[in-house]
Amino acid sequence: MREIYLDNSSTTKPCPEAVEKTAEALTACWGNPSSLHTLGFAAEKLLAHARSAVARSLGCRPAEIYFTSGGTEANNIALLGAAHSRARRGKRIVTTAMEHPSVLNTMKALEKEGFEVVYLQPDHAGCIREGQVREAVTAQTILVSMMAVNNEVGTILPVDAAAGAIAAVQAPALLHVDAVQAYGRLPLNPARQGIDLMTVSAHKIHGPKGAGALYIAGGARLAAPFYGGGQERDIRPGTEPVPAIAGMGAAVEALPPLEEARRHATLLRDRLAALLEPMPEVVVHTPRAADAAAPYILNLSARGVRAETMLHFLAERGIYVSSGSACAKGRQSHVLTAMGLEKREIESALRVSFSRNNTVDDVELFARALREGLDTLAHSR
Amino acid sequence: MREIYLDNSSTTKPCPEAVEKTAEALTACWGNPSSLHTLGFAAEKLLAHARSAVARSLGCRPAEIYFTSGGTEANNIALLGAAHSRARRGKRIVTTAMEHPSVLNTMKALEKEGFEVVYLQPDHAGCIREGQVREAVTAQTILVSMMAVNNEVGTILPVDAAAGAIAAVQAPALLHVDAVQAYGRLPLNPARQGIDLMTVSAHKIHGPKGAGALYIAGGARLAAPFYGGGQERDIRPGTEPVPAIAGMGAAVEALPPLEEARRHATLLRDRLAALLEPMPEVVVHTPRAADAAAPYILNLSARGVRAETMLHFLAERGIYVSSGSACAKGRQSHVLTAMGLEKREIESALRVSFSRNNTVDDVELFARALREGLDTLAHSR
Repeated sequence: MREIYLDNSSTTKPCPEAVEKTAEALTACWGNPSSLHTLGFAAEKLLAHARSAVARSLGCRPAEIYFTSGGTEANNIALLGAAHSRARRGKRIVTTAMEHPSVLNTMKALEKEGFEVVYLQPDHAGCIREGQVREAVTAQTILVSMMAVNNEVGTILPVDAAAGAIAAVQAPALLHVDAVQAYGRLPLNPARQGIDLMTVSAHKIHGPKGAGALYIAGGARLAAPFYGGGQERDIRPGTEPVPAIAGMGAAVEALPPLEEARRHATLLRDRLAALLEPMPEVVVHTPRAADAAAPYILNLSARGVRAETMLHFLAERGIYVSSGSACAKGRQSHVLTAMGLEKREIESALRVSFSRNNTVDDVELFARALREGLDTLAHSR
Repeated sequence: MREIYLDNSSTTKPCPEAVEKTAEALTACWGNPSSLHTLGFAAEKLLAHARSAVARSLGCRPAEIYFTSGGTEANNIALLGAAHSRARRGKRIVTTAMEHPSVLNTMKALEKEGFEVVYLQPDHAGCIREGQVREAVTAQTILVSMMAVNNEVGTILPVDAAAGAIAAVQAPALLHVDAVQAYGRLPLNPARQGIDLMTVSAHKIHGPKGAGALYIAGGARLAAPFYGGGQERDIRPGTEPVPAIAGMGAAVEALPPLEEARRHATLLRDRLAALLEPMPEVVVHTPRAADAAAPYILNLSARGVRAETMLHFLAERGIYVSSGSACAKGRQSHVLTAMGLEKREIESALRVSFSRNNTVDDVELFARALREGLDTLAHSR
């Protein structure tokens, strides 16, 4: 049975370049990058190469890239580090109600420490208005954290407005952007966008699990929340996960031009939308406008069939999508809840997410299976 | 030129089994373990298999193993988590002056938070006496952290005495053991030894960099210091580094019986000691008694030649050793300093560390090159 993987926001298949480079780090360049001998230097060289690749992709200097074990760790370092280093200048933090759990749960911990966290609420389409951001960011704000693209509905958040708002009131705030879903998909240039901290992850761009990176703008200083032997200039101590980092570098270099990727995803997304259009049970939650959502995610409710039931039906046919984010592991989506969707829509919500490996054929087979699922499962209730 | 790698305490060469399993996780089982579909389940199965392998090696239940991105992260989670969860019961922490930077620097951070940290000092041979531990552990002690085997000189620390001392005064202390250097080399059974928390790492046992594990005894509760999507039961959130964890499991399963490994290392260590014996410039710091030091590390000073100079001389001949720990990156060893060695001995200290890949031939070639180095470099000063 042919497998159709449409769950690329959960994770992506490592590309051959990443697999090969990871293997090289395991078999040829397996030294400790901190070792002061040839084998160590060879491993350090792999790190440096990967660092340059990530830096190039973000238009920044290699010294502004700090490798981590993944997106969650990068988000923790950014938020805990920024809040603790700026605590004397204020307690106000602005974020949104639709962030990833690694941001939301860190915010809850910061609230317990005495920080005041404002959660901007998305509208029914999963969008946050620029005006909301401008209202929330005060001169006492020390940190703003906003994802670039939401991981469940694919909407684009007003990151540039956040940078503008911070500048307008001259807040002492660092701006952190969780760009895990945007990286390799939308143009990102933190320096030009006024972003101080940016999180990216390897396994969402066809790299290995176990590596990510935090961009820290040249001037920004963080109180590192973890302690060790000084690796990554004390920001993320611990022997570097060289195989995964080397694989990440190769995955970055193998990324197609953004415009090409975007065209391909738009083609798939539009074809899917057209196929869903005639299905009366289906509601699409992701907006279509190019400035409202990235074309890589389409969130929909197949009303009348619980998401888990539909996932199972599709999986039996070799088609993999998800009900919200993988990290939520089946808990009710906080994003769709914040968007104010009805319970029956949340319970029947499916996330379809594309990568460069998908074809129009995949989309058509998915739509056909969904139609069958609705016919079979809704009737059997 | 044949390469002779005698720096196995810095990192080890991944074994073929680990390389193969890592590749499998990248090419076949690349799903997100949190995904509720077949591809996710396959990745989760790799994790479960590795978890069982690590649990078996420590004589514990799989549910007591929490995967991390490595030893440093495991140490941070253990120490920050234990201190913060027990802060109401006392402020006293006992550790040693010869711990890894990931323990020592975390302790410094805890001191800034108001904890009182006692650092036990090693003697001239790098040993800590049981009496020192018994004296230090009071009824107000909430945490004791002690490495099983020191990473620079190879001495065995009195972990069992620490467990005994905690029990004797009925302290509310958790006992954490950094077993990174002991794992796969000495018998470890945390439950039987009265250990609550134990850190192990993959890349020191011929597994990949980027994975480690924290043993947390069934009853022990930790305040997790990082926040995310609930992976590893909230102790270490973030998408699991499946390739490295799968490789770690394979490396654990490929470990030779401890007695065999120990016999092999002792053979190499004793042969080296015999070859160094006639060299008047050489002082061996690592004690020989089986209960004082593990046979995997031999620390020596080649007096009259700075360590960096000797490392370079040896590396030109394809022989790799280190000057202290890789994580110290050339800074003066805090371990040898705590042992009270003279400056000229610290500056000329070399660490030779063995693995199952080394042969007697390796040791003989190293000794010969060291002799040549002493003759060539000491004269040229």
